Amino acid sequence: MDLLPRTEASARLERLQARMQELSVDAVFVQQNADLYYFSGTVQAGLLCIPASGEPVYLVQKSAARARMESPWERVVAATSLKKAERLLADSGVSQLAVVGLELDVLPVGHFLRLKELFPHTRFVDASDMIRKVRTIKSTYEVEQTRRAASFLREVFGEIPRWAVPGATELEVAARLEGFLRHLGHQGLIRARGFNFEIGYGAISAGPSAGYPTCFPGPVGSLGLYPSVPIGASRRPLQRGQTLMADIVAGFGGYVADMTRTFELGRVNEEMHRAHRFLLELMRAVEEMLKPGTLCSDIYREAMTRVQETPYAPAFMGVGDSRVRFVGHGLGLEIDELPVFAANHDVPLEAGMMIALEPKIFFPDGGVGIENTYWITEDGPENLTHYPEQMIPIAF
Amino acid sequence: MDLLPRTEASARLERLQARMQELSVDAVFVQQNADLYYFSGTVQAGLLCIPASGEPVYLVQKSAARARMESPWERVVAATSLKKAERLLADSGVSQLAVVGLELDVLPVGHFLRLKELFPHTRFVDASDMIRKVRTIKSTYEVEQTRRAASFLREVFGEIPRWAVPGATELEVAARLEGFLRHLGHQGLIRARGFNFEIGYGAISAGPSAGYPTCFPGPVGSLGLYPSVPIGASRRPLQRGQTLMADIVAGFGGYVADMTRTFELGRVNEEMHRAHRFLLELMRAVEEMLKPGTLCSDIYREAMTRVQETPYAPAFMGVGDSRVRFVGHGLGLEIDELPVFAANHDVPLEAGMMIALEPKIFFPDGGVGIENTYWITEDGPENLTHYPEQMIPIAF
Repeated sequence: MDLLPRTEASARLERLQARMQELSVDAVFVQQNADLYYFSGTVQAGLLCIPASGEPVYLVQKSAARARMESPWERVVAATSLKKAERLLADSGVSQLAVVGLELDVLPVGHFLRLKELFPHTRFVDASDMIRKVRTIKSTYEVEQTRRAASFLREVFGEIPRWAVPGATELEVAARLEGFLRHLGHQGLIRARGFNFEIGYGAISAGPSAGYPTCFPGPVGSLGLYPSVPIGASRRPLQRGQTLMADIVAGFGGYVADMTRTFELGRVNEEMHRAHRFLLELMRAVEEMLKPGTLCSDIYREAMTRVQETPYAPAFMGVGDSRVRFVGHGLGLEIDELPVFAANHDVPLEAGMMIALEPKIFFPDGGVGIENTYWITEDGPENLTHYPEQMIPIAF
Repeated sequence: MDLLPRTEASARLERLQARMQELSVDAVFVQQNADLYYFSGTVQAGLLCIPASGEPVYLVQKSAARARMESPWERVVAATSLKKAERLLADSGVSQLAVVGLELDVLPVGHFLRLKELFPHTRFVDASDMIRKVRTIKSTYEVEQTRRAASFLREVFGEIPRWAVPGATELEVAARLEGFLRHLGHQGLIRARGFNFEIGYGAISAGPSAGYPTCFPGPVGSLGLYPSVPIGASRRPLQRGQTLMADIVAGFGGYVADMTRTFELGRVNEEMHRAHRFLLELMRAVEEMLKPGTLCSDIYREAMTRVQETPYAPAFMGVGDSRVRFVGHGLGLEIDELPVFAANHDVPLEAGMMIALEPKIFFPDGGVGIENTYWITEDGPENLTHYPEQMIPIAF
């Protein structure tokens, strides 16, 4: 089991502390699993106190023993509860916390109210933007993990034609695919930051499932097995003449890669082929823009401008009230990281960002779409999900 | 796809409204997926406003179309954002919301602050306890879903001896098991209410993995694949003379069932057999108490008193700082529902509660444990996970 290298953790710490000092924040209390792992190399329940300078102090409820095995930081303090957090931090040399940042985008109100009681003289501010921005820039170490996750995707997409046979249901394809991903070393869950954001391993959506109305915060619909968990796959059998859209997320070492390909069950109509060819051209055009300095909003505008000239505009990135207003998103330890390729997101791409681009168009007989995960370098994008992008025929 | 019956939704609504009226709460805004499903029959992104009397109004961002298909409630209002929530509710006849309950145990602070801005004249109070208590009493409809989930567990546990062969790793057993569960119709994810509570499909822990230090809020440890996602299974090969503890959660229709059995790889030492026989006796003794009126704390005390008389006390319900202070928990749409069988939980069992009891003891060569999911009836417990409880031998 690879532990987070100390040099890696130190670089992350320095980048956060630089922002903290700019914003006069005395400390950040990190408590959410993805952020805990990012800054400490472990996900033990507790409170990771990152002061504006110096090393963190990790108050750990469960398990301090494991935190000591996995974290590069030395100051791990066992705490059966956080009731004495203020004193335990002071004992470790961290006191006078006038302004403390919290992950207010994910921290439940109940936890927040308890912290306010435990630190009565502290003013809490939102540190989530700061944390999310630090996390956008991926190191080569992080890219290595994502690369492994992407390799799982390439391997498993190669098997889909073997599973998507006449008589099979979406669920049967999904069950095979998920079992195989897990066998390869998929981490078994995909983290999302958004409240209520549930994704499983992604979607296997054949024919009309892909455009089915959905609460999912991405473009691909899914009937799902039942209204209580309306994601992933349904019990509908695959039909000749449909597309099968596979939008799958793999995770290795905490890091996720996201990839979509479109399979053709027998022969789908020419309009769907035309739409898919349009998306291939769109991907090539937008890839040209994937370099440091390009505004994310410009990429969205470029995609929308191209789509406006086609008949696909009303079914681009979703149908009806299930449509989304972006064409891609950041990803890393979570599937919904920054940046976002959306109209008002006037943020320049930077070297080190990890992003997924996912243009998709929906028809009654199925969705067509492509999605790749790219690492942005000074020289342009590196596609971690390199794999044939054409519609993949399946004899059916 | 079964829709939530209107009678079922109405009964849930009435029980919540009775509590709301007692506590003079004008409305509850439900926003978390499990609660949304419970009270509306769908999980569409938005805000389900439950007034103290009358039917709910569901403001839906994505997708109102799907909410209309799935929810028995008629007042579904499409809302591109919640900015105009106050006016949209007033237009639907729900206004003068002086006191509104929120799910403060799960709602992120950021969402809460936005709601405070959108409803400047409203005082928000915590409705999570009220909601969680209403949800403890399961209807026969809910039990049917749990029964299906439990049937998946019985089926998949029967296959474990076929997968747990010499040379196999924990991960290989887990991958087979998870793929097969999914094939049967497992919902693909297990919901938990607790912040950071990640469980996947549960744990396949062989030998020392079961007692490995863990952040997991239950007794069973797991090395996991890497520190970033330390749950589920590791790449360690199974060894002769170890136990393999399978603590697995299945989900059907949103409802989960939880079951643990202990497998014996070859021949494990006599001490582990004695401990397992002790747990069998403990289960029988505690089952006798599973009837309406028994305090949950008394069940915990009974278990602890019995354990104190044995040599297993230091390794009961976990090892070192990974130990937990309960012997069972409620479950339903979430794995961590009320009640909890813990020292201070002086709550009487009621007919309709769904609970899991999971006494476990840990040794260096593996954990031994049993877990069943029970529905509490007037006549006592109905075990939904009936399946041989003895240690299950595997030729190895």
